[in-house]
Amino acid sequence: MLPENDYQKIIDPQSVALVGVTSRVGKGSNNPLEVLLEWGYQGRIYPINPKGGKILGHQVYKSVLDIPETPDLAVICAPRDAVPELFEQCGRKKVKFVIIVAQGFFDGDEQGKMMQEGLFQAADKYGIRVLGPNTLGVVNNFNHFCTSFMRFMNPPAETGILCQSGVFVVGAPQVTGGIGILIDTGNTTDLEFSDLLGHLARDSRLKVINLHMESLRDGPKFMEAARDTAALKPVIVYKTGATPSGSKVAGSHTGVLSGEDRVFDAAFKQCGLLRVGDVEEMNDLSKVFSTFKGIKGNRVGVVSISGGAAIIAVDACSRYGLQIASLSSETQDRLSELFPSWGHCTNPMDMWPAGMFHGYHNSYRRILEAFMEDPGIDSVICITGSFLDKEGDFLDTTGLIREIAAKNPPKPIVAWTYGQRFQEYAREFEKENNVLYFYSIDRAARALSALYTYHHHLKNKQEPPVSLPANAGQARVAKVLAANKPGNLPQPEAFQILEAYGIPAARWATAANFEEALSLAERIGYPLTMKILSPEIVHKSDVGGVRVDIGNDRELQEAFTAMLREIKAKRPDAKIEGALIQEHLAQGTELLLGSKRDPQFGPVIVFGSGGIFTEEWNDISLRIPPLRKKDLVAMIEDTKVSKTLAGARGTGAVDQERLANYLALLAQLVRDNPSIMEMDINPLLAHGNKMVALDTRIALGE
Amino acid sequence: MLPENDYQKIIDPQSVALVGVTSRVGKGSNNPLEVLLEWGYQGRIYPINPKGGKILGHQVYKSVLDIPETPDLAVICAPRDAVPELFEQCGRKKVKFVIIVAQGFFDGDEQGKMMQEGLFQAADKYGIRVLGPNTLGVVNNFNHFCTSFMRFMNPPAETGILCQSGVFVVGAPQVTGGIGILIDTGNTTDLEFSDLLGHLARDSRLKVINLHMESLRDGPKFMEAARDTAALKPVIVYKTGATPSGSKVAGSHTGVLSGEDRVFDAAFKQCGLLRVGDVEEMNDLSKVFSTFKGIKGNRVGVVSISGGAAIIAVDACSRYGLQIASLSSETQDRLSELFPSWGHCTNPMDMWPAGMFHGYHNSYRRILEAFMEDPGIDSVICITGSFLDKEGDFLDTTGLIREIAAKNPPKPIVAWTYGQRFQEYAREFEKENNVLYFYSIDRAARALSALYTYHHHLKNKQEPPVSLPANAGQARVAKVLAANKPGNLPQPEAFQILEAYGIPAARWATAANFEEALSLAERIGYPLTMKILSPEIVHKSDVGGVRVDIGNDRELQEAFTAMLREIKAKRPDAKIEGALIQEHLAQGTELLLGSKRDPQFGPVIVFGSGGIFTEEWNDISLRIPPLRKKDLVAMIEDTKVSKTLAGARGTGAVDQERLANYLALLAQLVRDNPSIMEMDINPLLAHGNKMVALDTRIALGE
Repeated sequence: MLPENDYQKIIDPQSVALVGVTSRVGKGSNNPLEVLLEWGYQGRIYPINPKGGKILGHQVYKSVLDIPETPDLAVICAPRDAVPELFEQCGRKKVKFVIIVAQGFFDGDEQGKMMQEGLFQAADKYGIRVLGPNTLGVVNNFNHFCTSFMRFMNPPAETGILCQSGVFVVGAPQVTGGIGILIDTGNTTDLEFSDLLGHLARDSRLKVINLHMESLRDGPKFMEAARDTAALKPVIVYKTGATPSGSKVAGSHTGVLSGEDRVFDAAFKQCGLLRVGDVEEMNDLSKVFSTFKGIKGNRVGVVSISGGAAIIAVDACSRYGLQIASLSSETQDRLSELFPSWGHCTNPMDMWPAGMFHGYHNSYRRILEAFMEDPGIDSVICITGSFLDKEGDFLDTTGLIREIAAKNPPKPIVAWTYGQRFQEYAREFEKENNVLYFYSIDRAARALSALYTYHHHLKNKQEPPVSLPANAGQARVAKVLAANKPGNLPQPEAFQILEAYGIPAARWATAANFEEALSLAERIGYPLTMKILSPEIVHKSDVGGVRVDIGNDRELQEAFTAMLREIKAKRPDAKIEGALIQEHLAQGTELLLGSKRDPQFGPVIVFGSGGIFTEEWNDISLRIPPLRKKDLVAMIEDTKVSKTLAGARGTGAVDQERLANYLALLAQLVRDNPSIMEMDINPLLAHGNKMVALDTRIALGE
Repeated sequence: MLPENDYQKIIDPQSVALVGVTSRVGKGSNNPLEVLLEWGYQGRIYPINPKGGKILGHQVYKSVLDIPETPDLAVICAPRDAVPELFEQCGRKKVKFVIIVAQGFFDGDEQGKMMQEGLFQAADKYGIRVLGPNTLGVVNNFNHFCTSFMRFMNPPAETGILCQSGVFVVGAPQVTGGIGILIDTGNTTDLEFSDLLGHLARDSRLKVINLHMESLRDGPKFMEAARDTAALKPVIVYKTGATPSGSKVAGSHTGVLSGEDRVFDAAFKQCGLLRVGDVEEMNDLSKVFSTFKGIKGNRVGVVSISGGAAIIAVDACSRYGLQIASLSSETQDRLSELFPSWGHCTNPMDMWPAGMFHGYHNSYRRILEAFMEDPGIDSVICITGSFLDKEGDFLDTTGLIREIAAKNPPKPIVAWTYGQRFQEYAREFEKENNVLYFYSIDRAARALSALYTYHHHLKNKQEPPVSLPANAGQARVAKVLAANKPGNLPQPEAFQILEAYGIPAARWATAANFEEALSLAERIGYPLTMKILSPEIVHKSDVGGVRVDIGNDRELQEAFTAMLREIKAKRPDAKIEGALIQEHLAQGTELLLGSKRDPQFGPVIVFGSGGIFTEEWNDISLRIPPLRKKDLVAMIEDTKVSKTLAGARGTGAVDQERLANYLALLAQLVRDNPSIMEMDINPLLAHGNKMVALDTRIALGE
C-alpha cells in the first residue's frame, strides 16, 4: 500500500502541473486545464506549454523546470513522442508523482515498448511513481479534482473506483452511478490496485468500491489488498479480457485449467469480492450498497399489483438464493380483511383484489406497512404499474413507498414497475435515495442477494491461512529436486517427494529385475500393479509399460516377461532400469490433486474428479495459496465429486478433513519448492479415511 | 388451430358487447367502454348494465338479451359472482365467443372452482369458446380494438403476443416494445396458445411473436403449433412459474428429472423457440427481430471509441457464440492510414487514436463505411460515448451511424454508449428504426446471436419425426403388460419387453433352483451375475439379492447358497421364485435410457450417464416424442458422457446411430403402451457397436 502522504498527493494534491497542455480551448479541445477550472479545483495549477503565454487567463510556463515550486503531482498530457523529455524534466524538478495520459507505450508498437523501458529507467533514477500510461488519471469529487482531458457529466457518489479504462471514468455516471474517488491505472506499469485499495477501504466517505480489471501483474499482492478491503467494504469487480494466453498457461495434458479466468475467479472468491458480468450488474450492485447499510437476512416479502409478476418474483428469489418470507400470523390478521373470499392473503401478495375492494393506495399502504413491521421479512420487493400516462395515473404509489421507506430505514425496499413510463418511475422511486428501482425483478433479486451475501458471508470474514509447521521432509525434497533436470521426475522420486510431505502413496518399491520383483511382491502382497522404469519412456501405457491387477507369482512372471518383450519391440532405444511394483487398489473414489504455476498468481492448487474422469467431466476447482480453512472446505464442496465423498453413492463418507490436509500439504510443497512448475496426483484413491496416491507426476522448470 | 373466421371474431369483431360494464367513468374507473372509445374502435359497441341509461353517450342495454343483434364477441367485465348469470345470457343470445375478465375461479377458492365447472357446462351446452377467466382479453392495434379495462400507453409494434398475465398487456410497451396483436389467455381454461399461434404466424403484419407462459394443459398440441410457427417466424418465449409440482413429477428414485422446467426447456428447444430469462431479454430479442430482417452470418465487426470497451465486446461475442470478423486486406488498406504508427488497425477497432489525428466524426464515418462494405463482416457493434452534456457533445455520431445504416440495409448495426446521457442516446439511435441501442454490449451480442440462431438454425427447419414401422413385438408386449398389476414389472418380463422392441439385454435366463442355474451357466458362460426373483423384493441389493462376477461353478454354488441364506434371514416373508442368471459384462460405458410421463407433455425420453453416476452427475438430457433425427442427435450431444461415446477416453467410439435407434425404439415403446408410467434401462452398457441392457425397471400405472 502506498504511504498515506503519497496517496494524498495523488488524489488531493496542493499543486498540480499540467505538462504539455494544449492551448486550444472550447468544444472538442480536450483541454484538461479547462476541465480542472470548470470543476472548481482549489489548488495551485501550473500549465506548461513551450509556447508560454496564457491559457484561460492562467500564466503558462515553458517548462516544468520554470515553475516556482515542486508540484505535488504532474500530469503529462502531451502526445507520446513528447513524453520522455517531459518526464525527464519532471524528474529534474523532483516531482514524485506523474500521470502519463498518452497511449502508445506497452499498448503500442516496438518503439512504444522501448520508450516505456526508458520511462522505467528515468522513474527509477528520480524515484518517481507513475500512474499510467494510457489513463485519464484521477477524479476526486470531494475536492473537485479531475485530471481527465475529457469533459463529462459527473454526478458525485459515495463510490470508490479503480479501473484500467476510460469507460469507467467518463462512463461512471451510468456504470457506477457516479464517482467519489476514482483512479484509472491505465496500463498499470507502476501504481496498481494493491497500492490504492487499502486507502479506499479506509475512506469513510465511500460506501462501496468498484474495480474494473483487465490485467494484473502481481496476483498475491492484489489478493492481500483485496482481502483487507473486502473485510471493510463491499468490493465489486468486473474482470474483462478474453483469455487466449490463459489456455496456454493452463494444463498441459488435460486442459484442466481451462484458461486463466478460472484462476481470477478463484482469487476473487477467496478474497470475498463480488464479481459481476457486465456494466449493468456493476451499476445494480453499486447502487444497492450505496443506498442500503445492511440487510437482516434473506427473507423477502413481495407486494405486487399483479399475480403474474409475483410469480416472476418467486422465480427470481429462488434463482438468487433468497427465500420467500412466511408472513407472521399478526400480519395475516392485519391484512386478510382486505381480501375478498377468493383472494390469497399470502406472500408473495397479489394485492390487486384488495385494491379493487379497498382502493389501490389504501391497500398498498396497509400491506407495505404490515410487511415492513413483520419481523420475519428482511426486505421487500414492490411491484407496481407505470402503464398510465401522467394525467390518468391513479396507480402512482412511488410517493407512498418512499414515505414508508423513510420510516423503516433498516429494511431495504426495491421496486419494479412495468409499462411505458418505467424510466420516469425509476427516477421517482430513487428521488430520496431510500428506495431502489431495478429494470427487472431478476436484477432486483440479484442485487438483494449481493447485499445479503456481503453482509452475512463476506464482511469481516478475515481468517488466517492454515498454518503448517515447516516440513521435516523439505531438506530431502530439496536434495531430490536439485539432483534432477527440468522435465518430469522419475516416478520413484515423485513418490518419495509426496511421502516426504506426508501424502501417502500406495505401497511401492522398485525392482531391477524379475527376482527382485518377486521378493517385493511377497513383501507388498498381491494384487499388484507394475510400471516400467525408464528415463526415456514418459507415456508408459502407450508402450505397454503398465500392468495392473497382477494376482500371483505366475501372473507376475508372465506380466514381467510380456512387458519387457513389448517395450523392447516398441522402444528398442529405451534404457530399462527395472520396474516399479505397487499394491493394486481398486476400491474408492478417484481424485485429482494438482498444482500449476500461473503467471499472475503463482502456484494454483487444483482439486477434482480424477482418473479417466478428469478430462471428461472437467469437474475441478481451483484455489490460490495461502489457503484458509474455508478455502479448503469450499474447494472440495465446489466439485461434483464432493457428493460422492460425502457418501452419496452409499460407499460411506470419506474423511474430508484428511483430504483437506493433503491439499494444504500439496500447497506447502509447491510453495516451498518453486522449481516445481506443475504436478498432479491422479488418482488419489479415497476410501473412507484411507487416501493414497496411485500415480503422480511432478514437472520441474528451468 | 381455431378456424380463421372464429379467430377473426376474437381479434377483429364487427360488434362487441361489454357485459356488466361499470357506469363510472374517468380517472381510476377502469371502464372498458371508455378505453375502447378512446382507442377509436370502429365496430358496433353494446354496453350492458342492469341499470340501463347512457354511459359516455352510448345507450346501455339492461341485458345482452336485449341488444338488436348477436354480437361477434362478448366481454363479461363484471365481478366474479355476477359472471355465471351473464354467461348464461350470452349463451341464450347465441354469442359464440366470450371473454371473462374477472378473477377468482380456478385461481380462487373452492367456490370459484365450482363456478368454473359451471361455466364449462354452460359453454358446452351453448357451444361457446371462452378466453380467460382472469384476462385483459384482446388488443389489436391494426383496427384499434382493445378489451382491457385498464388504460395504458400503447405504442403499436409489429409484434404478436400471447400471454397469461396482464404484465404483458399493459407492460407491453416496455417488455415487447409495443403490440401488434395480443391475446391474453389468462387462466387458459379453453382457448389456448395452440388455438392461436398459427394465426399469428401467418399474419404478414407481424415480424416476431412473444409468448409469456405460466402453465400449459396440452404439451403435444402446443408443440405442434409452436413448431409450425417457429418455422415461419421467430418465437420468443418467457416461461415463468416456480416448479414445486415439477420435482414430484420428476424421477422417483434418482431425482433425475429435476423439476418440470427441464421438460419445458426440452419442448422449447425441439420446437425452435428462443427462450428468454427475463423481461429485458424479451425486449432485446423482440426489437432485434422487429428491426432486422436477417443476418448473413455470425462474424461481427466492432468499432469502438475505447480500447477497454472493445475488450468487453470480444468477451461478449465469444460468450454468445459470435465470431470477431477478420478484416479484408482491402478494408485494412483503406483504414490503416488513419492510424498513427503505434495504433492497431484491426478488428475490434479502437478508433480513438484515428480520431485524434483525423477527427472523430471523419474517422468514425470512414471506419464504419469500410466495415459495412467488407463482405467478411455480417454485423457491426458501434461503441461511442454519451458522456458529454448536449452543448459540449462533439462526439455525437448517432446521426452518421443512422445515415450509414440506412444505406446498407442488410447488415445490422447495434450500438452501445457509455455516460450519463445513455438513455437519450438510446432514443436517438433508434429514431429511424435502422440501428438498435442496447444497454450493455453483452445484451447487444446476445440479441445478434439470437438473430443469427433463428435465421440460420431454426427458421424453415421443419423435419418429420423418425418413422419406425409398427413394432412386431407389440402384441406380445401388450399381453405381458395386461397380465401385470400396477407397480414394477418382474425383471424377466421387463427384459422380454425390451427385447420385443429390439433393445437387446445381456444374455439372461431364469432358474427355479441351483441345478437349473448350473445348467444355464453352462449355456450362457461365465462370468455371471445372479439376481433373486421374488415378487416381494423390490430393492434386491439391500437384502443381498444381487451377486456379480461369478467366475465358475464353485462360485455359483457358493453365491446361490449365500444369497438364499441371507434373504431368508432378512426377508422371511418373501416368496422366492428362483434367480435370474445373466452374463456379467464389465467393459464399456454405462448409460441411462429412460422415460417418465409428464402431466403436460406425456412420455418424456431421458438419456444420460448411467450406473452410479446417474445421481452424482445429473448428466442427462430430455426430449419429448415424437422425435426428429436432430432431436436424437442433440439429446446425445447435450450430455457430457457423449464425449466418452465419441471416444474421448481412448476406448474407441460407440455406434451413436445404433444408440439413437434404441432411444427411438424406447420412445415407440412408451407411446405404444400408455400403461408404462416410467421406465429406465440403467445401465445400458455401450462398447463399440455393442450395446446391451444390464438392468431395467418398468413401472405400470393404474
